[in-house]
Amino acid sequence: MTTVAHHDVLAAAARIGGFVLRTPVLEVSPGLFFKLELLQHSGSFKVRGAFNRILSAGELPADGVIAASGGNHGLAVAYAARELGVRAEIFVPEVTSPVKVAGLEALGAHITQTGAIYSEAAEAAAKRAAETGALTVHAYDQPEVLAGQGTTGLEIMEQTGGVDTVVVAVGGGGFAGGITVGTSAGDGAGPRVVAVEPERIPTLREALRAGEPVPVQVSGVGADALGATRLGGLAYEILSGPRVESVLVSDEAIVAARRTLWARHRVAAEPAGAAAYAAVLSGAYTPAAGERVAVVVCGSNTDPATLT
Amino acid sequence: MTTVAHHDVLAAAARIGGFVLRTPVLEVSPGLFFKLELLQHSGSFKVRGAFNRILSAGELPADGVIAASGGNHGLAVAYAARELGVRAEIFVPEVTSPVKVAGLEALGAHITQTGAIYSEAAEAAAKRAAETGALTVHAYDQPEVLAGQGTTGLEIMEQTGGVDTVVVAVGGGGFAGGITVGTSAGDGAGPRVVAVEPERIPTLREALRAGEPVPVQVSGVGADALGATRLGGLAYEILSGPRVESVLVSDEAIVAARRTLWARHRVAAEPAGAAAYAAVLSGAYTPAAGERVAVVVCGSNTDPATLT
Repeated sequence: MTTVAHHDVLAAAARIGGFVLRTPVLEVSPGLFFKLELLQHSGSFKVRGAFNRILSAGELPADGVIAASGGNHGLAVAYAARELGVRAEIFVPEVTSPVKVAGLEALGAHITQTGAIYSEAAEAAAKRAAETGALTVHAYDQPEVLAGQGTTGLEIMEQTGGVDTVVVAVGGGGFAGGITVGTSAGDGAGPRVVAVEPERIPTLREALRAGEPVPVQVSGVGADALGATRLGGLAYEILSGPRVESVLVSDEAIVAARRTLWARHRVAAEPAGAAAYAAVLSGAYTPAAGERVAVVVCGSNTDPATLT
Repeated sequence: MTTVAHHDVLAAAARIGGFVLRTPVLEVSPGLFFKLELLQHSGSFKVRGAFNRILSAGELPADGVIAASGGNHGLAVAYAARELGVRAEIFVPEVTSPVKVAGLEALGAHITQTGAIYSEAAEAAAKRAAETGALTVHAYDQPEVLAGQGTTGLEIMEQTGGVDTVVVAVGGGGFAGGITVGTSAGDGAGPRVVAVEPERIPTLREALRAGEPVPVQVSGVGADALGATRLGGLAYEILSGPRVESVLVSDEAIVAARRTLWARHRVAAEPAGAAAYAAVLSGAYTPAAGERVAVVVCGSNTDPATLT
């Protein structure tokens, strides 16, 4: 079984350290920390995995990189490729908004709009990669991607001096899975991981119920960034472990958390980026007295006019 | 002569530590740090001085506190008073927007709208304070206020491990003056302080030219937050010293810096909060190779719809 171990995350940190930001931690009240990963290059954590995947090959991929995504993952792969001087092809469905396409093009990526839905664009990307020899960068289900995202977990433990609990959003599970490994001590022990999903995209909840990743219906305010239709297999192996607690939040709770992040803390998150905080603010997860909790605020690719 | 010494800033830090945030520092490129003071309670550094002024009396002021300001200072005094359970009266000119008045009222402050311009509201506030015995909190020209703002400087030196240069905006000079003292080693030595003003509000530049604070015309994009009509006397004593370099930036440079802070760094600053970065981005101040520079991003009380 392929999996991701703590030493893989340490290796990723050494590999990508010169390319990603060590995003800051803010202690908003005693023992409650925000990991401000939304200030990361390209506006989300996704560049960590993208850089680690591309740099893990040893040599830079001569035939470029390919990804399928009209969202944060696409932006991250385009950003990483530009920084490394590598050609990037990004496949997006035909429905992708002109604004998102323009954002990808501004990073120098070559865009192919094809297919009515995401999975058709992803199939076309896979076919193209097989033809050209370009390196595929998956949005979540590759070991290098999980290990890269997991570097966020190393930083959380260093910057807070240690926490009892990490609260993090789940889509395909690459970020939450990586953080679970990255916050462990190496022997598997580590803080509780509260894995937060929108009620309308319960990939982890349904996987835990079924005993394996299964397809789910996807809708709601977090769908643009947490809208994987099933949990990744690598993430499942990690997130089905004893340290992880599955929590669901409503769309209303996500919207309220996003507004509060701006109004009270001047943190400009996208809806998916506010999902983890929604669990704490709504009481879906209630820390005990004295519990030290890190909430990961993970994305900011949003129209700021919608913050108020 | 009244002045503010390094030990006053250390005392302020001990006094206000439980009430203000230790705002994070982000290293955006090697040796270039953003001090994200815009994430402070009430959306600007002003709460540091407000808390220090109010708490310096020993006992909480039984007759409450008074300030004149429709902007960041008013919000900060209202916030600090609410947290301390003290009555706050805020005087604002009649032209103050209903949105700002509502923001102050939401913090529980008692608002008096009087006078056509700021100085008339300030005079009414002073008269009222004399009648009621309430404690006045000045926006910049009180020693306790400077010492409070200076705690930002202590944090910058600790969080960065030391810098060669601090870049900070100047209005009345309380923040820049406080930071100049706070970043010193106690013996007067310390990093260069680049004191940045909008060309259209040159209170420090004109004070240095005249040899004392003098009235200036106030206009432009930074006027709502940097629009003091003359430099404070306490600030002049500090900012006329050898560590300080006066730099002017255009309104266009401030607007460009604000847009870049959002587009590239997802930092949602108000125009005045972006003035310091404008000096670096526009080349008005150009760091030498290897120079370690902290740019203070100091305010976020802005309509996010105007960030793009």
